[in-house]
Amino acid sequence: MTAPTTTYVEPKAPRGTRDFDPDDMRVREWVISVASSVYRRHGAVQIETPTFELTSVLTGKYGEEGQGLIYNIERKVEGHEELSLRYDLTVPFARYIAQRGITTMKRYQIGRVYRRDEVSVKHGRYREFYQCDFDYAGPTDRMVADAECVAVMSELLRALGVGRFRIKVNHRGLLDAMLRVAGVKPENFRTVSSSIDKLDKLPWAAVREEIVMTKGAASEEAADAIGRFATVHGAPADVIAAAGAFAAGDDGGAAALRDLELLAKYCGLLGCAGDVEYDLSLARGLDYYTGAVFEAVLLDEEMGSIAGGGRYDDMLGMFSRGGASIPAVGFALGIERVFDIVAKKPSATKPRIDVAVIAATPGCTEYRMRVCSELWGAKVSTEMCYSDKPRLKAHLAEAAKEGARLAAIVGADEVAKETVTLKDLTTGASQEVQLAALWSTVLAVLAVK
Amino acid sequence: MTAPTTTYVEPKAPRGTRDFDPDDMRVREWVISVASSVYRRHGAVQIETPTFELTSVLTGKYGEEGQGLIYNIERKVEGHEELSLRYDLTVPFARYIAQRGITTMKRYQIGRVYRRDEVSVKHGRYREFYQCDFDYAGPTDRMVADAECVAVMSELLRALGVGRFRIKVNHRGLLDAMLRVAGVKPENFRTVSSSIDKLDKLPWAAVREEIVMTKGAASEEAADAIGRFATVHGAPADVIAAAGAFAAGDDGGAAALRDLELLAKYCGLLGCAGDVEYDLSLARGLDYYTGAVFEAVLLDEEMGSIAGGGRYDDMLGMFSRGGASIPAVGFALGIERVFDIVAKKPSATKPRIDVAVIAATPGCTEYRMRVCSELWGAKVSTEMCYSDKPRLKAHLAEAAKEGARLAAIVGADEVAKETVTLKDLTTGASQEVQLAALWSTVLAVLAVK
Repeated sequence: MTAPTTTYVEPKAPRGTRDFDPDDMRVREWVISVASSVYRRHGAVQIETPTFELTSVLTGKYGEEGQGLIYNIERKVEGHEELSLRYDLTVPFARYIAQRGITTMKRYQIGRVYRRDEVSVKHGRYREFYQCDFDYAGPTDRMVADAECVAVMSELLRALGVGRFRIKVNHRGLLDAMLRVAGVKPENFRTVSSSIDKLDKLPWAAVREEIVMTKGAASEEAADAIGRFATVHGAPADVIAAAGAFAAGDDGGAAALRDLELLAKYCGLLGCAGDVEYDLSLARGLDYYTGAVFEAVLLDEEMGSIAGGGRYDDMLGMFSRGGASIPAVGFALGIERVFDIVAKKPSATKPRIDVAVIAATPGCTEYRMRVCSELWGAKVSTEMCYSDKPRLKAHLAEAAKEGARLAAIVGADEVAKETVTLKDLTTGASQEVQLAALWSTVLAVLAVK
Repeated sequence: MTAPTTTYVEPKAPRGTRDFDPDDMRVREWVISVASSVYRRHGAVQIETPTFELTSVLTGKYGEEGQGLIYNIERKVEGHEELSLRYDLTVPFARYIAQRGITTMKRYQIGRVYRRDEVSVKHGRYREFYQCDFDYAGPTDRMVADAECVAVMSELLRALGVGRFRIKVNHRGLLDAMLRVAGVKPENFRTVSSSIDKLDKLPWAAVREEIVMTKGAASEEAADAIGRFATVHGAPADVIAAAGAFAAGDDGGAAALRDLELLAKYCGLLGCAGDVEYDLSLARGLDYYTGAVFEAVLLDEEMGSIAGGGRYDDMLGMFSRGGASIPAVGFALGIERVFDIVAKKPSATKPRIDVAVIAATPGCTEYRMRVCSELWGAKVSTEMCYSDKPRLKAHLAEAAKEGARLAAIVGADEVAKETVTLKDLTTGASQEVQLAALWSTVLAVLAVK
């Protein structure tokens, strides 16, 4: 025999990642099934893409900050493909449909994404986390698909029971128009937007300082102009009026305002207007948005957004040789945070097993195997102890505690008579059953709640 | 507006990876649900671990060949954690239970693993693929848990309907004993085993040449001795007899033979003996196996093994500071190959939507939104076209082709009367329904198959 390796290795998971234990998994499976059924109710189909993409596919999609957060895989051989872990599910979706020449698709996708970010377990921020996306790529009358996205987001958060939430809405075209009117140079639009986006966490003075001093991305006067709109939020009509006073004279601004008016009306028809607030500071971090952007925040939890998305009409064109653009809109649910919220609630869980096969005397391992085989054959969830040493009382208590409905008790007597003593752990009643009749008796008991 | 990036990026997935399209996903979900229910029937609970682990956790577990196939992640900052993509789900499971001080656990886990291997789509060999594992860590009477693993493997392959299969079984202790008797040096046991393991694909002469000439791992005489046992396979009793003649005088060999006798008997009691064949060439590639090893092969498909596993009693101790060992046994289903097999079979699929909301005249987008909102509120799977331009005939044909049960047709008339023309796409019958009564009418129609 070769000597076993005895080097000690510390068993720990990487920083910013998490294991899901069996209780977590029950929550996760429930959340995923709820999200899937909401998405399917809206006609979406499911796809899955690889965990890593060619690095070239991800490059230039995530803004200055996002780019640095991408995990690259080491190349062992020069000239081999450069690979990176996916940063979200949107760019892979864009790659997927471009690769197949698809021009219209409503899809959902649930999977893990990766960001080499600061870790904050308190705020539910991990380096590996699940996303759960709903997107529509293809032609649509103005704001019709966008409104459905907001409606799906609202329906989803209600179905998940995450508590009170608000969906904040803005428009990249409006934001750009306002920056233009304020006198910000076009090349600084994205970096200034990303500062403005922090207004949900920082006061205006701090954001202003970042724009003017730290980044040098706008003059004092421009910053003051930005300050006049960036803090405006509230009912759609009021926000549209305030933004209109500022940017209605700009062509892009006027078009964006018309979009936002339509969106507000459609949200009313789709029954989600009560969840929506317009917010002129909302920018969303990603470079690829081109129209409406939206983000859901929880009102009773101290965490960032729980879902976010928007329109990205140009990104899919980056993968098209002719540059033909495919408009698209969608959002990602921050499902990891949902796991944390749902996990706090009590829930009824199905017991791990229905029947525990328990030894009353030693020497009946082989017979217990036959008992298990009968029950597994009838698709009954069953387990036997792997030891021949009987611990009847402890095993009965354990089975009852775990919620098993029945104990199949086997000792020398039962082996001799080819029977099983079947004990109902809810009522305490016992009956002796022939081995051949066991599975049908068990199915009958389990059928009665 | 900033100029949109126009750089063309070729949309393709990395070599050795695959996208799952909606049809693939239906197959995948079905396969995963079948595997989950078989595992749960045996009392297993589900866990999930991160996609990457600390490199130190994976090092030295996968043999000479495996080690080179591990994907490492680039460190951007010296001193940060070294990370690698998981190679299987077994080592992460070991790390998981050691980290928590768990001493007994029957768990299943389904997730992707990564190997920088040669790609062969024909043989279902990818660089990223799903595994679907069942393992038991903890004390067990000899071979009791091992036998359940073989039984679960058999039950699972039957439930998945993968066609005729055979589960090949061997024992690392027996293999080592035979190599010892043959005169191979202990430090060459693993590399010689890994050559012997290729006997399912290569003739003995080629394997012999690899051992003696390429690897220089055994003398001519030792190789001849190996040749006398390595090609033996068949019914357990026959194989045990043949191996006994060779290695019964070796202590480790004798113990392994007793294990294999027990295992054969237990497989009989658990009803899977007919699926089992003993095979003295089976080694399995991984370094961590210490006892019985098993591998399922399909008899009617030209692919390698579809499931494999074994006992690994020392690995979990590597993560324990005191070196306390936790015995363990389990297997992985090569679920990716199952996807391919199941995908070839016809299956009944649920339609994507139940109701298509279709425009008969322009100008009814807002009313169609109200119709959708009513149906989504009643949890009916519904979709409307995003364009105001009516294409009644084409949309009806499309909805019928996709299997939608109903079309909710809306034109100027319906808008004026607040009604919907509800057309049953199976019978062709139409009725006019008040908007307020729509959802209940639709639920009643859908309830009838």
